[in-house]
Amino acid sequence: MHRAAFLRPLVGELLGSGLLAAVVIGSGIMAQRLSPDDVGLQLLQNAFATALGLAVLILVFQPISGAHFNPVVTLADAAMRGRAWRTVMPYAAAQIAGCLAGAVLAGAMFGTPVAFSTTDRATPGNLLAEVVATAGLVLVVFALARTGRQHLAAPAVGAYIGAAYFFTASTSFANPAITIGRTLSDTFAGIAPSSAPAFILAQLVGGAVGAVLAAWLVPAGSREPVSTR
Amino acid sequence: MHRAAFLRPLVGELLGSGLLAAVVIGSGIMAQRLSPDDVGLQLLQNAFATALGLAVLILVFQPISGAHFNPVVTLADAAMRGRAWRTVMPYAAAQIAGCLAGAVLAGAMFGTPVAFSTTDRATPGNLLAEVVATAGLVLVVFALARTGRQHLAAPAVGAYIGAAYFFTASTSFANPAITIGRTLSDTFAGIAPSSAPAFILAQLVGGAVGAVLAAWLVPAGSREPVSTR
Amino acid sequence: MHRAAFLRPLVGELLGSGLLAAVVIGSGIMAQRLSPDDVGLQLLQNAFATALGLAVLILVFQPISGAHFNPVVTLADAAMRGRAWRTVMPYAAAQIAGCLAGAVLAGAMFGTPVAFSTTDRATPGNLLAEVVATAGLVLVVFALARTGRQHLAAPAVGAYIGAAYFFTASTSFANPAITIGRTLSDTFAGIAPSSAPAFILAQLVGGAVGAVLAAWLVPAGSREPVSTR
Amino acid sequence: MHRAAFLRPLVGELLGSGLLAAVVIGSGIMAQRLSPDDVGLQLLQNAFATALGLAVLILVFQPISGAHFNPVVTLADAAMRGRAWRTVMPYAAAQIAGCLAGAVLAGAMFGTPVAFSTTDRATPGNLLAEVVATAGLVLVVFALARTGRQHLAAPAVGAYIGAAYFFTASTSFANPAITIGRTLSDTFAGIAPSSAPAFILAQLVGGAVGAVLAAWLVPAGSREPVSTR
Repeated sequence: MHRAAFLRPLVGELLGSGLLAAVVIGSGIMAQRLSPDDVGLQLLQNAFATALGLAVLILVFQPISGAHFNPVVTLADAAMRGRAWRTVMPYAAAQIAGCLAGAVLAGAMFGTPVAFSTTDRATPGNLLAEVVATAGLVLVVFALARTGRQHLAAPAVGAYIGAAYFFTASTSFANPAITIGRTLSDTFAGIAPSSAPAFILAQLVGGAVGAVLAAWLVPAGSREPVSTR
Repeated sequence: MHRAAFLRPLVGELLGSGLLAAVVIGSGIMAQRLSPDDVGLQLLQNAFATALGLAVLILVFQPISGAHFNPVVTLADAAMRGRAWRTVMPYAAAQIAGCLAGAVLAGAMFGTPVAFSTTDRATPGNLLAEVVATAGLVLVVFALARTGRQHLAAPAVGAYIGAAYFFTASTSFANPAITIGRTLSDTFAGIAPSSAPAFILAQLVGGAVGAVLAAWLVPAGSREPVSTR
Repeated sequence: MHRAAFLRPLVGELLGSGLLAAVVIGSGIMAQRLSPDDVGLQLLQNAFATALGLAVLILVFQPISGAHFNPVVTLADAAMRGRAWRTVMPYAAAQIAGCLAGAVLAGAMFGTPVAFSTTDRATPGNLLAEVVATAGLVLVVFALARTGRQHLAAPAVGAYIGAAYFFTASTSFANPAITIGRTLSDTFAGIAPSSAPAFILAQLVGGAVGAVLAAWLVPAGSREPVSTR
Repeated sequence: MHRAAFLRPLVGELLGSGLLAAVVIGSGIMAQRLSPDDVGLQLLQNAFATALGLAVLILVFQPISGAHFNPVVTLADAAMRGRAWRTVMPYAAAQIAGCLAGAVLAGAMFGTPVAFSTTDRATPGNLLAEVVATAGLVLVVFALARTGRQHLAAPAVGAYIGAAYFFTASTSFANPAITIGRTLSDTFAGIAPSSAPAFILAQLVGGAVGAVLAAWLVPAGSREPVSTR
C-alpha cells in the first residue's frame, strides 16, 4: 500500500509521458506518410492529434501524478508550490524513460526502425522560440494552479500546445523529456541529438521566465475571478 | 413501463452505435469523394467528424444506456464496476446490430452499395496499434468513472479517438462492433472481413490491459482532485 | 418594456439566424475562393467555421430567444415542451427573414452578387440524409433539454453540425430557414430554389422522427445522470 | 504593493496582447512557409492556432487584467460597465505597444525582418466585414458578461474569432491594436499602414453597434438562463 502510494505517481508519469511521446511522434509519422507533399497539412494533423491527445492525458493522469510529463513543469512546481525537491529527479527520470519508450512504441506501431534523427533544429530563431514556448507553457500551468483552476489545465494545455506548434518557429517542443524522446525518431517529429542540448537549455531558461512571470502576475492566493475587472 | 425500462437502454445502444457507425463510415466516404488526392486530408476530415460526432452521441446517450457503443467497454464495466454479466450479451448484440445498420444507412445516404471491404489491415503494426488504442480508450473511460468525472467522458472520449486516428498505425478502430460494421463498407473506412477476427482479438487484449491499468492506477473511491499533487 | 419583452426574442431570432446564415454562406464563399482545387478542404473550412460560430451564437442568444434559429426546433418545442403555438409563426418568420438577410450580408461582404443558386441537390440520398440530419439535431437539442443540460446545447449543437457536414451526404442543412437563405447564394453553400421544397419536407419528417425518439428515449423529468448506468 | 496593483493589469495587457500578436502573426508566417500553394489551408492553420491560442490567453489573463487585448473592448467596457474612463488610454497604449512587440517577436523567431506590410486591404467589402466582425465580438463579450458568464469568455471568444477568420471577407482583424501590430509584418498576416486607419474606423463603428445591440438585447441584471425559454 505504501509502496503503491510511492510508485503510483512515478508509474503515472512514466506511462503518461510515454503515451504523450507516442501521440506526438506517431501522429507525425502518420501525417508524413499520408500527406507527403504538404508540410503545413502534416503539421495541422500533428497539432490536431497532439492538442486532443494531450488534453485527454492530463485529464486521466492529473489525479494520479499531477500529469506533468515534463521536467520543467516539475522543477517549477518545486520552486513555486513547495513540491519536495527530492521528488524532482525521480519524476524527471520517469518522464525521460517514458518518452524514450513512447518513441520506441510509435516506431513499432508504424514499422519505422528506431534511429537517431538527423534533423538539425538548433537555429537562433528556434532557440528563441523554445524560450517563448516553454515560458508560455509554465505561465499557463501555474496561472491556472494559482487561481484554483487546475481542472482547466487539460483543455488549456492541450490548446496551448496546439497553437504553439504553429506560432513558434520551432514547432514548440517545450519539454526536455519529449526532446530526448524525439531524438530517437528519424521522421517529421524528430530532432538530431546534437540539437537537443541547446533546445533543453532554452527550455530551462523559458521555464524560469514563465515561473517569474506567473509569480508576479498571479499573486499567491489569487482566486478565480467573479468579474472581469 | 417495466418493458420500456428494460428496452430503453438496448434501443439506446442500438441507435447510438448505429449513428456512430454512420458518422465514422459516412464521413470517410465523404472525405474520400471530396479529397481523392490526399489521404492525410481525408483522415483529417474523418477524425474531425468522428471526434465531434462521438462526443455528442455520448452526451445524448449517456443517461439512456451509458453510451458504451462498444462491447469491450461493456465487458470492462462488468469486470470493474459490477454491471450484471447477463446484460453483456444483449448489449453487445445491440451494439453490433447497430453498427451493421449504421453501415447500411451510410451506404444508402451516399449511394454506395453495401459490399464487403477488400482492405486488408491485419499487419503486426496494426494489431499492436489496436492493443494500444483499446487499452487507452478503456483507461480514459474508467479513469474518469472511478474519479466521479463521468460528465467529462463525452469530450474526453471524442478527443481521444480523434487523436488516436492519427497516432495509432491502424487509425484506431478500438471497438469490435465498429470493426464488424466497417466490414460492410468497401471504402476508405472499411476493413476486410478476413482482418476482423485479429483486430477484435487485439481489442480484447487491449481492453484487458486498459482495465488492469485503470484498476491499479486509480484506486476505487478516488475522488476528483482538488490539487494537482 | 412590455413591447421590448415581446420584441426582444423575435429580434434575437432574426439577428441570430442572420449571423448564422452569414457564417455558413460567408465561410463557404471564403473556402471556395481560397482553396478552389479541393472540395474536401473547402468543406473542412466551412465545417470548422460553422461548428465554432454556431456554438457561440447559441451561447449568446440562448437567454434572449432560446437560440432556435430553426423552424423545426421551434415546432418541436411547441409539440414537446409546451411553447405556445401562436409563437411558432412569428418565430419562423423571424428565422427566415434573418437567413435571407444573412445571405445578403455575406454577399455584400464578399462582393458576390445575390443570385439564385443553380446547385441542384434533391437526390434521394440527400433527402434521406436531411431526414437523418434533422432527426439527429432535434434529438440532441431535446435530449439535453429534457435532462436539464441546456447549458451544453451550445457546444453540442455546434459539434453535431460540424460532424454532420461530413457524415450526411447532403452536408446537413437540417433547417428550413437556412435552406431558404441558401437559395440566394450561387456559391459552394447554395441550393437551387427548385430543390428547397423537397429538402424542407425531409427536414420536417426528420424533425418529427427526432421528437418521437427524444420523447421515448428520454422520459420527461429525467435527470442528469450521476452514474453511467 | 500599490504600485504592483496599478502596474499589474497594464503589464498583463501588454504581455497578453504581445502574445496574441505573436500567435496571429507567427502562425501566419508558419502557414505561409509550410503550405505555399493553398491559401485556404494557410488560413485554416492560422485560424486553428488563433482560436486555441486566444482562448488560452483569455483564461490566463482574465484575472490579471480582464484580458481585453483590444481598445474597442476597453472602450465598450467603460461605456457599458462603468470602467473608469481614465483607465482607457493606458490600457489602449499597453495593448498597442504589446501588439507591436509581438510582431517584432514573431519576426525574430521566424527570421523575418520587421517591415511594413504591402498588403492593401481597405476595400468596401472588407470594411463592412470589419464592422460586422467587431460588432459580433463586442456582442459576444458583453452578452456573456451581462449574464454572469464571464468564465465562458475564453472558449467563446476564441471560437468566435476562429469562425470569423472565415466568415468575414477581411479575415476579421476586429481589433485596432492587432491592426497596428500587423502593419509591421510583410507576410500572410500583414496589412499595409495605409489601410489601417479605415480598418480602425470600421472597428470603432462595429464596436458601437455591438455595444448598442448587447445593451438592448441583454438587459442589465439578466441572469444565466435555467430554461431555454
